This record gives sequence, C-alpha cells and structure tokens, in this order.
Amino acid sequence: MRVYNFSAGPAVLPEEVLKEAAAEMLDYRGCGMSVMEMSHRSKMYQNIFDEAEADIRELMNIPDNYKVLFMQGGASLQFAMVPMNLMKNRVADYLLTGQFSKKAYQEAKIFGQANAIASSADKAFSYIPDLTDLPVSENADYVYICENNTIYGTKFHELPDTKGKDLVADVSSCFLSEPVDVSRYAYMYGGVQKNVGPAGLVIGILREDLITNDVLPGTPTMLKYKTYADNGSMYNTPPCYNIYICGKVFKWLKAMGGLKEMQRRNIEKAQILYDFLDQSKLFKGTAEKASRSIMNVTFVTGNDEMDAKFVAASKAAGFENLKGHRSVGGMRASIYNAMPKQGLVDLVDFMDKFEKENLA
Amino acid sequence: MRVYNFSAGPAVLPEEVLKEAAAEMLDYRGCGMSVMEMSHRSKMYQNIFDEAEADIRELMNIPDNYKVLFMQGGASLQFAMVPMNLMKNRVADYLLTGQFSKKAYQEAKIFGQANAIASSADKAFSYIPDLTDLPVSENADYVYICENNTIYGTKFHELPDTKGKDLVADVSSCFLSEPVDVSRYAYMYGGVQKNVGPAGLVIGILREDLITNDVLPGTPTMLKYKTYADNGSMYNTPPCYNIYICGKVFKWLKAMGGLKEMQRRNIEKAQILYDFLDQSKLFKGTAEKASRSIMNVTFVTGNDEMDAKFVAASKAAGFENLKGHRSVGGMRASIYNAMPKQGLVDLVDFMDKFEKENLA
Repeated sequence: MRVYNFSAGPAVLPEEVLKEAAAEMLDYRGCGMSVMEMSHRSKMYQNIFDEAEADIRELMNIPDNYKVLFMQGGASLQFAMVPMNLMKNRVADYLLTGQFSKKAYQEAKIFGQANAIASSADKAFSYIPDLTDLPVSENADYVYICENNTIYGTKFHELPDTKGKDLVADVSSCFLSEPVDVSRYAYMYGGVQKNVGPAGLVIGILREDLITNDVLPGTPTMLKYKTYADNGSMYNTPPCYNIYICGKVFKWLKAMGGLKEMQRRNIEKAQILYDFLDQSKLFKGTAEKASRSIMNVTFVTGNDEMDAKFVAASKAAGFENLKGHRSVGGMRASIYNAMPKQGLVDLVDFMDKFEKENLA
Repeated sequence: MRVYNFSAGPAVLPEEVLKEAAAEMLDYRGCGMSVMEMSHRSKMYQNIFDEAEADIRELMNIPDNYKVLFMQGGASLQFAMVPMNLMKNRVADYLLTGQFSKKAYQEAKIFGQANAIASSADKAFSYIPDLTDLPVSENADYVYICENNTIYGTKFHELPDTKGKDLVADVSSCFLSEPVDVSRYAYMYGGVQKNVGPAGLVIGILREDLITNDVLPGTPTMLKYKTYADNGSMYNTPPCYNIYICGKVFKWLKAMGGLKEMQRRNIEKAQILYDFLDQSKLFKGTAEKASRSIMNVTFVTGNDEMDAKFVAASKAAGFENLKGHRSVGGMRASIYNAMPKQGLVDLVDFMDKFEKENLA
C-alpha cells in the first residue's frame, strides 16, 4: 500500500509514472534492454532525450532563444556554476530568503563580490522582502533569488524589480508547479528531486546570449554552460535514467492538463491546509500570509513536545515525512504536483482529530 | 526477450538486479514509497546507502584509511577535481593511453603543469607503454593513468612504477571486474555506468591523508573531496536511486562469489572471443596481445564496408551495440560483469558463420 509522502525532496512521484517505469525495467518497448543499459549515443535513447526536451519546452512555453541544459551536481553545484559563467564583472546581487540563497551567496563570494541586497533573516526567513525598490548594484552581472524556499514555506509571488539587470533563479522547489514567463529570467535552474523526478539531475534554462566561452579563469569544462549547450547535454554520459523518468513526468503533466491546471490544483490543495491552519487553535502556519508557498507548508504547535507527538502520530497514521527541516523544527507538508488532493483532505481530517484530542 | 547487449556504457546490468528494482518500484519493502521518492535524510534510505558502502568496501577489501565518496558529474568532472584537490605543487604526470587520459591531461593543464610522460598515440593507442622506467617528475603531485581504455580495448596489467609518487587512476571501465590492491593507489575513481550501475554516479576511493582543505584557490565547495568525505557524501542530495541500483549490483557480485570469481569469469569470457579472433581469417583484434582488456574487445575486418555489414548482421541476430567507438570505427564487444558466458559463445558462433559466408 502506498503512503501519503510529504517529503520535501526526494519526494512523491506520480504512481502512473512509477508503474510504467516498473513495466519497462527489463525491456523498454521491445528493444530487449532496460533504459539503464542503453548507450546514450543510441537512437533509442536519443529519442527518449529529445522527447523529454520537447515536452518541457512545450509545458513551460520556453522561447526559442533559450537552451535547456541537463546537468548533474544538484543546485549546490549551480551555486558555483552561476558565478563562474555569469559573473563577468565579478559583481552580483543576492536576495537572502533562506538557507539555499544564503549558500548560493556564500559560494559566489569565492568568485567575486556578492552583495546581499535584501534579507528576511530578521524574522527567520518567514517572509519575502519588499521587492519594489531594491538597491541593485550599478555593475551587477545579475540579481539572484531562490524563488521558493522549501525550508521556510515561502515563495516569491512576484519577481523582483532588477532595474534592468539579468535575473537568475533557483526554482528547484517550485519547478513545473505553475506557468512561468521564462523570458523574464536570464537563467533559471532546478534540481529535479523535489517536484519532477529522481535526484541526480538539474535542469537549466538559459538565454542564448549568455552561452559563451567568456567564463571565469579556472572554470572546469564540465562547469561551463557552453559545454552542455554545444553538445546537447551529452559532452559526457548524462544521467540517462533520471532524464527518462523526468520525461515520463513531463508526459504525465501534459496529460493532466499542463501547468495552468497544475497551478489550479496546487492552489486548491494548499488552500485546504492553509484554511485549516488559519482556524486551528493548536497549529499555526509559520510563513507570512502574503509570502506563502503552495509547495511547502510549514507549521508548528508552538510546543516542541507536541510537535514531536504530532509527527509520530501522523507517521503511524500513514502520513510520512511531516517533520520540519532539521534546522528549523516544527512540521512541513511538501505538497508537490504528485500529491493528490485526497492527501490534503485526509491530512486535515487527521490534524483536526489530533487537535481535538490534544487541546483539552 | 532480452538481447545480448555489448554496449560500452551505459551497459548491461544483471537481470536479477533489474527484476528486483522493478518489483520494488512502487513500494520498497512495505514502506509505501519508491526509493526514488525517499528523503535522503530518512533512516530507510540511509540504510540502503550504508549497506552499499559496506558492500563495496567488503568486495574491494578497501583499507580503513580510505574513504569511499559518492559523487556526480562523471569521469569528465573528475578530470578537473583531481588537479583541483591533489595538484598541490601544480605539477602532475599523465600517461596517455587513449581519449580519456588525454582529456584528463588537457583538463589538468587549466590548473597547472601537466606532463605527458608516456604515450601510445604513435600506434593509435593499441598498447600500454613500457612502465618500468618512466620519467616521473621530481615535483609531481601524482602520476595519472586510465587503467582500462574502453575505446581501444587495452588495460594496464601491471601498475606503473611511479617512483614513490601517488598513483591516481580512472578505473571506470574495469571497476569491480577483478580484485585490486587499493593500497597501491592514492585515489581511484570510476563512473559506474560501465560495469556497475546507471549513469550519473562516480565512486571515488581516496586515501585519507589527501582529504584536506588545501585545494586550489577557486575550487567550488562541490568539487572538494573533503565536502563528500565530511558529510558522508550527503552535503547535498546524492543521486539516491543510482546508488540504490549500484548497491544491488554489489550484493549480486557478492552472491556470485566476489571479485576473484568475477575475474575468473571475465578472463574466461574474453578468452572465448580472443581465441576466435586469433584464428580468424576475417576478423582481427586491434589491441596488442600483452595489453588486451578483458572488458572491451576491439576488432576489425580491415574493410569498412565489411565492418558495417557485420555490425548490421549482428544487430539483426540479437547482438546489440557491437559498433566501435565513433572515433575509431570497427567493432567493439564490451563484456562487462553482467554479460553471461553464453553471450560470448553465441557471438563467436555467429562470427564464425558470418566469416564462412563472407570469406569466399
């Protein structure tokens, strides 16, 4: 029996996708081998790859002047690749809205001057700072954000005014959760292990004019975006199976109605939990309302023991991974695309019962 | 029906492993989720990870003063990580025995003085150079080899005399094919997609005294071996599913009798093909006999049209991926651990018939 899995990542995947992958494991469509066993230079695999790229382009309506790059190393490696490739003047502005933007900011300092031009650290990253008049640096190569903050349950609901500078965004935990206007970003990238597929793949979407050999001195071949752009992401062997599973998720998203429909569903799902939290006398959402994420919902009881009791009780009842990130505690429900609405209905029902039993 | 898959990588995997993976795809041992969906911080996943590490340590008899690192980016990223971490004096010696050692050598030049102290380029990399008195540089930080040359079908059957310098080896295409004395290497690494598991994972085995913060300036956090060593390879999300499949392959290898038995089988399998080639009037092995690999067997007819005819005919008969690497042409049979002996028996039988039909 499958559980409701609220993990922040790696996270729940569509059951249909897993069923197909299991059925194809020993023999992909009559070719006599698993996708894991296919040469990445074979026509069979190239078809899988090309379809995946075409499908994500269609889903996200990616303009022709953007390249889609399939890379390894996670967002943490992108924290270095972004400055190595894009910090031409060695200056960049970072908005600090959580642990991952902080890490990106610190990594960028290895390569040049990284400026923290806004931060919500003063209130434990529970909100997105005012974005209307940011002190963007005159010579900044880009302005960097982490668009959805997995640990803190916040999301940029509008993009910052970068005053003409290129916008770079880590979209790992909101990737494919709703329609986006790609043309507003110079570069966006996401680790797929939250909302898309198995860990070990990062998808980058980069405006073509930024693909150059003009990178910082000492940049390894494998950290140059141009290496991926020039070789169809196959300068070396890509993470073939991970891409194959993501391709299946893209097809599932298309079959579900695309990103507009996913957005409707995701808002509906999140609302079920937020509505409950807003009337609860035991549980309380931790993110400011205007900054709430529809992917990661963070909440507490205000009492560590009660939090622990709830996490244990929820697990026993088949709701997995509701414990908050080890750095902040409390609870977190990650409710990515593949989490069904029923998961939220049942969770809220369970929380309601727990509240009645524990609020004497 | 499964074919005989002679791909150089990604390559054939044990059928037993694929069957288990398929059976566990939707629900790993009653936990209600796929391994793809598990938090890498969960106990369930940590167990999978720890068993994989323990099993490879046991299989390879890895000494306690070596760390096992699970990384991403392929051998091509290691080409930069090796000098960034180990080229303290900015000098290293490279033995050029094929395309991958050449690429490693060229990448090292980004970071310091890389010396080509031996090469078999004069005869199309068809042999391993004499290793007895290499001109090892006085101030070399390490001596680098690619131990098995996938494209050219050659293998170092003895290790070079490094005159006291640390030995670094890319073992991607002979990884786990036979017992090795790990203590003779300072560092060895292998992309798993040839002889171990699904592409997207590199396993490094590094002597502990080399794990330091004393890396070249500008080395990204994710390219430091220390980042992996200090965090149990989970500084960020590792390629969880890829590691899980490799863990299954480790268990399969143990059940088969370990690396000594794999070596016996691999020699036996290779001998079947080499014996045929040595008596054939149509086909001819391209590697010098003393340098022959037991993992990749390269051969030609001496006629491009005949080669193409053979590749097409073999494919039609259920022998997949016998075409040689695009850079050298001819044929190549990669006969990794998971290729059964029967695959070689049947291949040789087919080649014999083809020869009789085409040698009029």
